Amino acid sequence: MPDTLSGPTIGARIADLRAEMAASSLDAFILPRFDAHQGEYVSPHDERLAYITGFSGSAGMAIVTAETVAVFVDGRYSVQVENECSGSLFSHHHLFDQPPEVWLNAVVQNGWKVGFDPMHLPPGWFDRFATACIETGATMTALEHNPVDAIWQFQPSAPLGEVSVFPLQLAGRSCADKSADLATYLAAQDAELLVDTQPDNISWLLNVRGNDVAFNPMPQSFLIADRSGGITWFVDPRKVSEEVCDHLPSTVAQRPISEFLADLRNLCKAGQRVLFDPDFSPVAVRQTIAAAGSTPVSVASIVTRAKSVKNSVELSGLHDCHVHDGVAWVEFSAWLDATVPTRAAAGDPVTEREAEAKILACRQARPGFLSESFQTISAAGGNAAMCHYAAINGHNAPILPQRTYLLDSGGQYETGTTDATRSFAFDQRPDGYDQAYTAVFKAFHSLATLRFPRGTQGHHIDAICRRPLWDLGLDYDHGTGHGIGHRLSVHEHPQRIGKPYNPVDLLPGMVVSIEPGYYEAERFGIRIENIFEIIEGIDGFLGFHNMTWAPIQTDMMILDKLSNTERAWLNSYHQHVFQKLSPLVGDEARKWLSAAVVPI
Amino acid sequence: MPDTLSGPTIGARIADLRAEMAASSLDAFILPRFDAHQGEYVSPHDERLAYITGFSGSAGMAIVTAETVAVFVDGRYSVQVENECSGSLFSHHHLFDQPPEVWLNAVVQNGWKVGFDPMHLPPGWFDRFATACIETGATMTALEHNPVDAIWQFQPSAPLGEVSVFPLQLAGRSCADKSADLATYLAAQDAELLVDTQPDNISWLLNVRGNDVAFNPMPQSFLIADRSGGITWFVDPRKVSEEVCDHLPSTVAQRPISEFLADLRNLCKAGQRVLFDPDFSPVAVRQTIAAAGSTPVSVASIVTRAKSVKNSVELSGLHDCHVHDGVAWVEFSAWLDATVPTRAAAGDPVTEREAEAKILACRQARPGFLSESFQTISAAGGNAAMCHYAAINGHNAPILPQRTYLLDSGGQYETGTTDATRSFAFDQRPDGYDQAYTAVFKAFHSLATLRFPRGTQGHHIDAICRRPLWDLGLDYDHGTGHGIGHRLSVHEHPQRIGKPYNPVDLLPGMVVSIEPGYYEAERFGIRIENIFEIIEGIDGFLGFHNMTWAPIQTDMMILDKLSNTERAWLNSYHQHVFQKLSPLVGDEARKWLSAAVVPI
Repeated sequence: MPDTLSGPTIGARIADLRAEMAASSLDAFILPRFDAHQGEYVSPHDERLAYITGFSGSAGMAIVTAETVAVFVDGRYSVQVENECSGSLFSHHHLFDQPPEVWLNAVVQNGWKVGFDPMHLPPGWFDRFATACIETGATMTALEHNPVDAIWQFQPSAPLGEVSVFPLQLAGRSCADKSADLATYLAAQDAELLVDTQPDNISWLLNVRGNDVAFNPMPQSFLIADRSGGITWFVDPRKVSEEVCDHLPSTVAQRPISEFLADLRNLCKAGQRVLFDPDFSPVAVRQTIAAAGSTPVSVASIVTRAKSVKNSVELSGLHDCHVHDGVAWVEFSAWLDATVPTRAAAGDPVTEREAEAKILACRQARPGFLSESFQTISAAGGNAAMCHYAAINGHNAPILPQRTYLLDSGGQYETGTTDATRSFAFDQRPDGYDQAYTAVFKAFHSLATLRFPRGTQGHHIDAICRRPLWDLGLDYDHGTGHGIGHRLSVHEHPQRIGKPYNPVDLLPGMVVSIEPGYYEAERFGIRIENIFEIIEGIDGFLGFHNMTWAPIQTDMMILDKLSNTERAWLNSYHQHVFQKLSPLVGDEARKWLSAAVVPI
Repeated sequence: MPDTLSGPTIGARIADLRAEMAASSLDAFILPRFDAHQGEYVSPHDERLAYITGFSGSAGMAIVTAETVAVFVDGRYSVQVENECSGSLFSHHHLFDQPPEVWLNAVVQNGWKVGFDPMHLPPGWFDRFATACIETGATMTALEHNPVDAIWQFQPSAPLGEVSVFPLQLAGRSCADKSADLATYLAAQDAELLVDTQPDNISWLLNVRGNDVAFNPMPQSFLIADRSGGITWFVDPRKVSEEVCDHLPSTVAQRPISEFLADLRNLCKAGQRVLFDPDFSPVAVRQTIAAAGSTPVSVASIVTRAKSVKNSVELSGLHDCHVHDGVAWVEFSAWLDATVPTRAAAGDPVTEREAEAKILACRQARPGFLSESFQTISAAGGNAAMCHYAAINGHNAPILPQRTYLLDSGGQYETGTTDATRSFAFDQRPDGYDQAYTAVFKAFHSLATLRFPRGTQGHHIDAICRRPLWDLGLDYDHGTGHGIGHRLSVHEHPQRIGKPYNPVDLLPGMVVSIEPGYYEAERFGIRIENIFEIIEGIDGFLGFHNMTWAPIQTDMMILDKLSNTERAWLNSYHQHVFQKLSPLVGDEARKWLSAAVVPI
C-alpha cells in the first residue's frame, strides 16, 4: 500500500489522469480495483484505484469524469471511504444500492467515449456498463494501454515471486488426476478449451504455490486447458525453477504470460465451444474467443467448483494448521489481557500495530507458519466499527482498558489457511456493548449448530445467523460467511453465506467461515468468526464441523440471555479448546487459558 | 372437475389428441394447466390438462408426443400424480428438478414441430421451450386453434359469471385513484400502454368482483391501460350489468373479450414502449406488441405490486372476516372432536367429504360468507401426506379416531379471503407423529415471531421456519408461505416465502401465510397455517401480526420439547382466540373451546 502514497498529491494524480483521458478523447474512465485476475488483493503494481483515489479497501470501483471521481464501495467500507476519499473531488456511492452502471447511465451523454482496460474488467461488469452506455448513445472504448499506468511515474513493476512445488502429500491429488477430470468435463460439455485466469484455481490445478501478491501464496498466471488433457500455462519464466518444471506433468506446456491473448486467439478454432468464467475472466478473454470465431461459453470455472470441495488430505491439513493457529490466538490473548491494563496504567498503552505484530509473532513461533493470510484488522474502540479497518496509512490507535478491541487475523501455513476474529474487552465496555456482544454470540451459535438438507444455499441460511440481532432491531452490513482456501485465498468462492442470491449448494467438504458482527460508528465493533468444515450426518443432513480453536470471551455475555443450549455449546467448545491447546501453549498462556474456559 | 370425467377414456382421449396432432404435423404438443389468465384455478372449459391426463392438481404441465405423455408436477403433487396418471401411457417428472424444457430438449429431434397455444403459454415458458427447440433444430409452432378443444366433445363452454360492484367502503380506494396512479407510473416508465391479463389485478383496479372460476370471485377479462389514464376493458358484455357500468369511471371503455389481441395490435404504435408481465401474460401478448412495431417491455405488472400492499380498509376487512372464520373453525372442531369417536364406535365413521361439508356449513352460518376460497383439503390418515389432496373423484375416506386428520380450508367473505390449516388427532397417533407435530408447531412459531429488516425477501427467511424440522432431519417439499388476496385469489403473488429465489421485498401491509408441514407417504400429514399481516415496529423492523384465530391442538405436543418462549406464545395465542371467539360461538363450541385453550 505505501507505494501509492509517494509521488504527487491525489488531486494532482486525478488532474494527470484527466489530461491523459482528454488526450484519448475519453469522457469517462472506469477504474476498478481489479487486476487481470479479479482477486481481492492486488500487487503494488496493480494498485491503480488506490493510487488515484487513496481508497485502500479490498473492493471498489471508481468512475472518473471531468466533473467528479465517483467511488463505489460496499457496506464494509462505507465509513472508510469517507475518511480516505474526502473532499470535493469525490462522490461516494454504495456499490450495490447505487451501482456504478446506474450512476454512469445517469451522467453519460450521447457521443461520450467511456474508456476501460479490457484486462481489468470482467464480462459481467462490461455488459452492465455497455447496456448503460447504449441506452444513451455513448460507446465503451477498450484501451490498449492503461491511462493510470501512463501517468504513474513510480509505479512498482509487476511481481516476480518464485513459484514452488506443492507436494502430493499436502495436495492429496496429483495435477495429472485433476487435469484428467478437467478433460473429461470438457468432453462432456462438448467444449474444446477452458480458460482460467484465477491464480488460486491455477495453483490448485497444477499443485504449485507462489508469492506474487501479499497474503496470497500463488503466482499470477493464466491457463488454457484443452479436452485432450493438455494444459498451456502462461507464466513469467523467471518465476519458475527447474524443480517446478520437473514436478509438472508432461501435459503442461509453459508459455510467456505476455503471449496469453495471442495464443488464445490461435488456439480457438471456428465453431468450437470455449469456456470462460464471466465473473472472473477479463472481458478481453471473451472478446478474443469471439474474434477467433469460437463460441465463448460463459460458465463459472469447473476448477472453482472442484477446488471448493476439499479432499481428505486437504481437510486434514486445514484442521492441523487451525490447531497451531489456536495456540497463537491463546498466546496472543493471554499477552493482550495482561499487557493492556498495565501498559495503559504506565501511560504507554499497547497500540493496534503492536498487537498486530504480536499475533504475527505468536504465529511465527508455530511450526509450518508461512505468512499472514490477509491484512490483519487490529482495531481499538471505534475503529472496529470499520469492518475492514487496517492500522496502516498512519493509523495506530491505543488499545485502552476502558474501551474494547477487535482482532480479525489469519495465517498461511504449510498445510492450509486460517482466519478468525475475536472481540476483547478489559475494564469497561460502552453502553449497549454487552447486549450486542451476547447477540453476536447467539448469532454465531445459531448458525454453527444448524443442520440442513442438501440443496441448501448460502442465501437460504444467512438469516438464521442474523435472527438474534434482528430480535433486537440490529443487523450487520456484510456477509455472514465465506469459503477459505487450502494454502490459497483466505476468501474463496463459489460458496458464501449472505443475503445476495448465490445459487451454489453447500456441500460436504466445503470450508466456510461463520462471522456475524455488530457495529456502531465511532463507538465499537464486534465480530466472532470461526472456520467450519461442512460435513454430512448419517441421516444425509449437513452440518458445520468446527475448525477454529480459540476462547470466546465470556465476560461481556449477559448470561441470563443465553439458553441452556447456548451455554452448553460454549462450555463444550471451551472444553475442547482447552484439551487441544493446553498441551501446546506456554505456562503463562495455559494459566490464562484455564481461566478463559471456566464454564458459564 | 367432474366435467373432465365424462366422455371417452383417458387412453382414447390421448389417442384422439395424437390423431389431431398428426393432422397438423405436430411431433409434440405442450399442454400446460394454464388458461389465458395463468391462474391457479381454471374454469371447467379450460381443464384441458385434466381432460387429457386425469391429473387434477392446481399446477402442472404435460408434453404429449407419439411415444409418451410426460407429466410435470411439483413436490406437492408427486404422490397424487402417481395415483391419477398411472400406467404405461405416462411418465412423471418433477417440475423443477426435471423441468419440461430440459426433457423436451432431450427428446426433440431435428425438424420436429412442437405445437402450443399462444394464449396458454407465458413468455417465460415459451422462451425456455424455444431455446430447447433451437438447439436441436426443432421449431415452436403457435396454433390458432387448441387441439384439445378440437377433440373435446363435451367441453363445457366458457363461463359467464356475473360481474358485481366492489364498493368503495370495502375497497378503500376508488378505481379513479388507482388508475391515476397507474397513469403516473406509465409516464415515469416512458411507456404508452400496460397490458394486464390477471383477473385479480383487473378486479382490484376496477373495484369489481365476479364469478367465472370456482373459488375465485373475479371475472375473466383482459385490460389495457394507457398513460393518459384511459382503460380498455375486454370482457364479455353479457356479464356486465348496468349497475357495474354506472360504477366504473368514464375513463374505462368496454370492449368484447374476443377483440383483445386485435385491439392491442391497433393500440400499439411503432416505437412506443408497452409493458406486459412475462410470467403471467400469454406469449401472444408479447408477439402482438412486437408485431405492431411497439417495444414489448417485460416487467412484472405494477398492479400486482400495488395490490399486494393492502390499504387500511382492506386490512381491516381481512382482520374482520378472519374472526368470523375462526368461529367456523371452532364450531367445526368441536363437532369433529365429539363426532369422530362416537360415529366410529357406531360403525358409521365421519368421512372426509362430510367434514368438508361441515366446515362449509359452519362458514355459511357466518355473516358475510360468500363461498369457499379454494378446494378444501379434508384428508384422513395417509391421505394428508398428499399436500393438495382433495376428497373428490371418488375419494372419501373415513376419519377414524385411531388415525389423524388434516383440514386446509378457507372462505371468501364480503370483506376478504381466509385460508387456514389445522391438524387433528383423536385417540391414537402413528409413531413419530407427535415428534413431527411438535416440530411443525416449533417451525410455525419460529417464523411467526421473527422480526426482520426492510429489504428482507421470502427466500431469506424460509429456513427460519424449516429449522426445527431440519434439526430432526425432516423437511417439507412445498413453500412456507404465500400472499392472500382481499376477496380475490387465495394464493396471491408477488410475495412468497420459500426456497426459490423471489426478489420481492416483504413490506408492511402485505398479507402472507405461514404454513410449515411434515408428510410421511401413506402414514400421515401435518400442517399448521395461519395468515399474518406484515407490520412495521417503532424501530423500523418488520414482523408478522396474526390474523387467524383457531386453537392449535396441544394433545400431540411433546411439552418438554417446547421452550418457555414457545409455551408462552401458544398460551397467549389461545387466550386471544378465546377472548375473540368465545362470545361468538354456540354453547357446545364454547365448552370445547375452553378446554382447547387450557394453558400448557
